[in-house]
Amino acid sequence: MTNIARNFTDIKHHMTLVQDSICQALEKASGDKFKTDEWNYKQGKGGGLTKVITGDVIEKGGVNFSAVEGRINEKLAKKMKVSSNTEFFATGVSLVLHPKNPFVPTVHMNIRYIDTGEKWWVGGGIDMTPYYPNIDDIKHFHLTLKKVCDQHRADYYEKFKKWCDEYFFIKHRNEARGVGGIFFDYINDDWQKNFNFVLDLGNSFNDSYIPILNARKDIAYSEENRKFQYYRRGRYVEFNLIYDRGTLFGLETQGRIESILMSLPPLASWVYDYKPTAGTAEAEIYKYLTPQNWV
Amino acid sequence: MTNIARNFTDIKHHMTLVQDSICQALEKASGDKFKTDEWNYKQGKGGGLTKVITGDVIEKGGVNFSAVEGRINEKLAKKMKVSSNTEFFATGVSLVLHPKNPFVPTVHMNIRYIDTGEKWWVGGGIDMTPYYPNIDDIKHFHLTLKKVCDQHRADYYEKFKKWCDEYFFIKHRNEARGVGGIFFDYINDDWQKNFNFVLDLGNSFNDSYIPILNARKDIAYSEENRKFQYYRRGRYVEFNLIYDRGTLFGLETQGRIESILMSLPPLASWVYDYKPTAGTAEAEIYKYLTPQNWV
Repeated sequence: MTNIARNFTDIKHHMTLVQDSICQALEKASGDKFKTDEWNYKQGKGGGLTKVITGDVIEKGGVNFSAVEGRINEKLAKKMKVSSNTEFFATGVSLVLHPKNPFVPTVHMNIRYIDTGEKWWVGGGIDMTPYYPNIDDIKHFHLTLKKVCDQHRADYYEKFKKWCDEYFFIKHRNEARGVGGIFFDYINDDWQKNFNFVLDLGNSFNDSYIPILNARKDIAYSEENRKFQYYRRGRYVEFNLIYDRGTLFGLETQGRIESILMSLPPLASWVYDYKPTAGTAEAEIYKYLTPQNWV
Repeated sequence: MTNIARNFTDIKHHMTLVQDSICQALEKASGDKFKTDEWNYKQGKGGGLTKVITGDVIEKGGVNFSAVEGRINEKLAKKMKVSSNTEFFATGVSLVLHPKNPFVPTVHMNIRYIDTGEKWWVGGGIDMTPYYPNIDDIKHFHLTLKKVCDQHRADYYEKFKKWCDEYFFIKHRNEARGVGGIFFDYINDDWQKNFNFVLDLGNSFNDSYIPILNARKDIAYSEENRKFQYYRRGRYVEFNLIYDRGTLFGLETQGRIESILMSLPPLASWVYDYKPTAGTAEAEIYKYLTPQNWV
């Protein structure tokens, strides 16, 4: 466990290290380079670094870092049980990758930290959305997350996996967004341990996801595979625009639109009443979209 | 003005006539045939006829008719100022067309009627979303709507056009969804006149939109034009999934998902921080996405 001081400079520094390490691993795996956009937070101090990658391996991907200071709005204040207008510092790293190859799952990860001086919280999560699922990939992904969790608290994996299954669920389709992962929010029992946990989660991305990307990115695929990927990406759009609290909160509070909606896929399709034929490779995924134990 | 009796059979009959007449006009204009799905309303009596067209003129389009009877849920009861659990009859025709040619605008129309025995209301609207705007088309579209409105009440067009501009606005983008049209809801001052007004609106579709489709459907277009259309269709998805009350209400009340989400485009794309170069054909539309007078 790294000993970290609870001051904004150190906290930001550790967050940017996570962003850098992930971006380096993704550049190595894809052969493409990230482009960087620096932006300022209009409603207060600070801003962010949005890093975007586009190419034949990652068709569209973004790894965002932000660190902002301002005053908490009414809605968030209620949720956080602090008086509205309280000063806050918030920082985090979030990523969504839409790989081009339909045999590589889409992935999302987010680690976040909020501090009001008096109180503080950490939150985060990671979840994977395959199109053509591979059970070994899913097991590897979950086992890696379980390992990170187990190093911190014995009940984290079970608890946070369940939280993830509940959160990333597309109610109107009665389908999970994918094969889950972990999700947690407003954790604040031990500053040093909790902050180290989110950093460990961030740093585990190169172990949980990158090997899957490397193993599947060169599989040959057909136009039909791509079409199915576009179709399933439609579900990703549905989840993010209808249910994702982070997205909706960002839009309501006039965050930086392009950074918030970076999670949306480069191409998505909606086909009226489409159902894959039983027994085809396209029908496989539907067996995986019910929360279940993977480890 | 057609004299119509306020009974469910007659009301439904007139609604289906609107659906039929529009579908015939679209089949003639496109050379393609609609496929029909009949469905039952699980939470009560009745159901609907979903008609879907897919082809080289209309890439994806649906013209829905539904007529259902049931008990009003709490949320809607509050809005309609009736006690919850009140019996209701609701019927309507709704359509969304996503043409393939990027020079043809996307269009949406909806006419609806609700009756609780004691009370009743009509509502409806139509709005157009071009990718490469043509001022003559927009003027023709709005003038046709104005004509329909003016035949019923002198203040309808101005009032309902404003309502449309306010409703079909994508707040987080600070952009209108398109060039507007008209929108109105919970109108109930004179049964015969109000019901005839929604029918006239429905029947005006073949005058307002079909001529635009016919005039533009064979314009040559490039892959770049298509890409821009995919990109702008992303905004349509954003509006429908984040703001459209009909869509969200349908999803919350477990309506027939495939009929509700039929409004979503066959292909849509999101490109990080895309802005068309000033002076290009792609930059044109942005001058049109601020509510303005067209007639």
